[in-house]
Amino acid sequence: MKIEMICTGEEVLSGQIVDTNAAWVANTLMESGYELSRKTTVGDRLEDLVQAFRESAARAELVIVNGGLGPTSDDLSAEAAAQALGEPLVMFEQWRAAMEQMFAARGRTMTSSNLKQAMLPTSAVVVDNPVGTACGFRVKLGDAWLFFTPGVPHELFRMVKEQLLPFLVDLDPNSGGSVTVHKLLTLGQAESAMANDIDEIVMACPDGVSIGYRASMPHIEVKLFHRARVDETQWQAYLAEVRRVLGDSLVGENQKSMGEILHSLLVDCGQTLALAESCTGGMVADQLVTQAGSSAYLLGSLVTYSNSAKQSQCGVRADTLAKHGAVSLETVAEMAAGARRALGSDYGVSVSGIAGPDGGTEEKPVGTVCFCVCSDRGRWSQALAFGSGGNRSRTLIRKLSTAVALDMLRRHLLGLDPVADYPFLTRIEARRG
Amino acid sequence: MKIEMICTGEEVLSGQIVDTNAAWVANTLMESGYELSRKTTVGDRLEDLVQAFRESAARAELVIVNGGLGPTSDDLSAEAAAQALGEPLVMFEQWRAAMEQMFAARGRTMTSSNLKQAMLPTSAVVVDNPVGTACGFRVKLGDAWLFFTPGVPHELFRMVKEQLLPFLVDLDPNSGGSVTVHKLLTLGQAESAMANDIDEIVMACPDGVSIGYRASMPHIEVKLFHRARVDETQWQAYLAEVRRVLGDSLVGENQKSMGEILHSLLVDCGQTLALAESCTGGMVADQLVTQAGSSAYLLGSLVTYSNSAKQSQCGVRADTLAKHGAVSLETVAEMAAGARRALGSDYGVSVSGIAGPDGGTEEKPVGTVCFCVCSDRGRWSQALAFGSGGNRSRTLIRKLSTAVALDMLRRHLLGLDPVADYPFLTRIEARRG
Repeated sequence: MKIEMICTGEEVLSGQIVDTNAAWVANTLMESGYELSRKTTVGDRLEDLVQAFRESAARAELVIVNGGLGPTSDDLSAEAAAQALGEPLVMFEQWRAAMEQMFAARGRTMTSSNLKQAMLPTSAVVVDNPVGTACGFRVKLGDAWLFFTPGVPHELFRMVKEQLLPFLVDLDPNSGGSVTVHKLLTLGQAESAMANDIDEIVMACPDGVSIGYRASMPHIEVKLFHRARVDETQWQAYLAEVRRVLGDSLVGENQKSMGEILHSLLVDCGQTLALAESCTGGMVADQLVTQAGSSAYLLGSLVTYSNSAKQSQCGVRADTLAKHGAVSLETVAEMAAGARRALGSDYGVSVSGIAGPDGGTEEKPVGTVCFCVCSDRGRWSQALAFGSGGNRSRTLIRKLSTAVALDMLRRHLLGLDPVADYPFLTRIEARRG
Repeated sequence: MKIEMICTGEEVLSGQIVDTNAAWVANTLMESGYELSRKTTVGDRLEDLVQAFRESAARAELVIVNGGLGPTSDDLSAEAAAQALGEPLVMFEQWRAAMEQMFAARGRTMTSSNLKQAMLPTSAVVVDNPVGTACGFRVKLGDAWLFFTPGVPHELFRMVKEQLLPFLVDLDPNSGGSVTVHKLLTLGQAESAMANDIDEIVMACPDGVSIGYRASMPHIEVKLFHRARVDETQWQAYLAEVRRVLGDSLVGENQKSMGEILHSLLVDCGQTLALAESCTGGMVADQLVTQAGSSAYLLGSLVTYSNSAKQSQCGVRADTLAKHGAVSLETVAEMAAGARRALGSDYGVSVSGIAGPDGGTEEKPVGTVCFCVCSDRGRWSQALAFGSGGNRSRTLIRKLSTAVALDMLRRHLLGLDPVADYPFLTRIEARRG
């Protein structure tokens, strides 16, 4: 089935907001086995909308239109649809009543501007919006269905899942529907999509499996789209091969982030964590606190950005700082142990590094970062060289540092060696104890 | 001048990457006085590209094409341009030599796949790419110029600034070029774009000034596009009116973030800061550490997520926690004072709140957050009710908390009352001392 999408709105066209709705819709379609063939973005001019509707309807069988269903004067999607169809706009009493009920339930009176939201082309079929005043609708223009959806993200998401996807199955029972997605979160893969490892995975790919990836630095997520007709044994063998190729860079499967992964592990083991952060400046803690319920294990993070704070909060010795510097295996070891002692936790994790762009030396250039994880079972430290320049910005170095710190803890919790061999990250030194 | 943009690539079309290039280009054009009239996104199919090039060229005077200039088999922009033009692809020796030099300078040998990047339609005019192997080029298709740009963001950005914008001025010396943008960062404005305050600003807008806004929660950035022909006195009067209307919600002008604003203020005053964070979990520190050079003033942040950490690290009294709870004016006051004392800083800032979705009570529902800022000059605390549900997620509550904490410090540094009246945020209580 040929599907196009039309995104409306000056803010999207002019780049004042990044169009995450379109990415979400495309992604959701793909995960359900459908593909977009084109996406058009137009502003709030009536003639541009009418032209775009007609052009897309001439090419595709289904056109998903997003936005322009609100109560204000620049919301023109219904009017443009009526013009494209050559039909008048009429009041849909069914939706008017639904809106009145919605307002009453919130103890408010409906304003006259909302009445506009019940004015649809004569031939429209209303598509329910249980969470907002903008109803969706669909109309047939030539051979194509135009399916109108609201611009407010959570209203759109719900309408796509509850109304659009079932409608697609009705339209063509043989298309889509049979795809599952297996997501592999990687760390320390090359930033280029054409990394050899990923190429190798693509080449070994059996029939019925297709591959996508999403770069979300410092991670690359590899997505395997797996159709029902793929043989289960062959699928498992392929998955094993993918795991082998990715090696230590594979940090999670079907989980969104390091924060989510660590959250599950820590909740499950019932033990507690203390952090000591320097260059990451609170980012490691933030990844965990983002998860609701993180208070079950996270006692705190000592963001000791200055040397004096490293001494007073983590008990790093003045002598260690003087002799080895703030970015050293010795300092991170004392930071992790100190945070663990100060907060009384089972696990301690620390990071200290040079995020740049200044502060590098010949011996320790920008991008040098030291890590330590410790527990009753021992202490592991390492120094990595992330490099700098190009797109290795201060932010990327800090994000990489956060991910590696969390991955060392992940590996330790799973009984693996906390010091991993990431394919595209350079290790300077590692130390146990 | 009518300008369209065509974005190419399956990853963009399928939502595997969000199209930030297009937003950046549209934004940059707008700030230079040009407007996009349409944006089309197509995948890596040759016939789709050819069709899109022809359609856009029939409607617009300039078509900016992004992506598809790389060395791999799915990079088809040059080939599609040649087909749309009815011309062969020929080797451009000038670019081939430039690429060879680039590889030599990096001590590498050029691979044969890169040769493809010097194959352009006969009538192409090469557009230099000083930072990559994908040269840009432009061709005339009918009455329109197609201007091809690379997909790698930093290569694109440089080509747009150094080559595309001057070309636009050449094309039409009277268009664009004369716009300056004045950006107003707001906090505590309603999330709806149709907030009364912003409507009021739009209505008072003089000729030659246009308005855009960008929601980047928890902030809304209001952008005033100001053409050279606007009278300076009138402009200043308008600006004063805008400032009056925005009131306390105006937190910065022509600055990107609270972190950047505080960074400048703290670097300028030469004084130091200690933080104590609970629900923000390191986010306040992170906003500052993101700025290079933040070590000049940030001594550290005590992310005391547990009650025991609040006691051991910030010296909050057990009695205070028992009597008033972790989310109270009393606790945040002791946290701020304690962090300031422990790290020996000039300023102390603290946050403690209920980010949800669980942990709320009838007395202190989810979204209740307490703040304190202190220094030699005194101590100010307040409790705000951010609410929850709808789009007031855990993340938004934490981001709002971070912004308010930084804004209290900003106001204190500027000699204003740290307790501000934000138009759309509810204050429960405030206390001085």
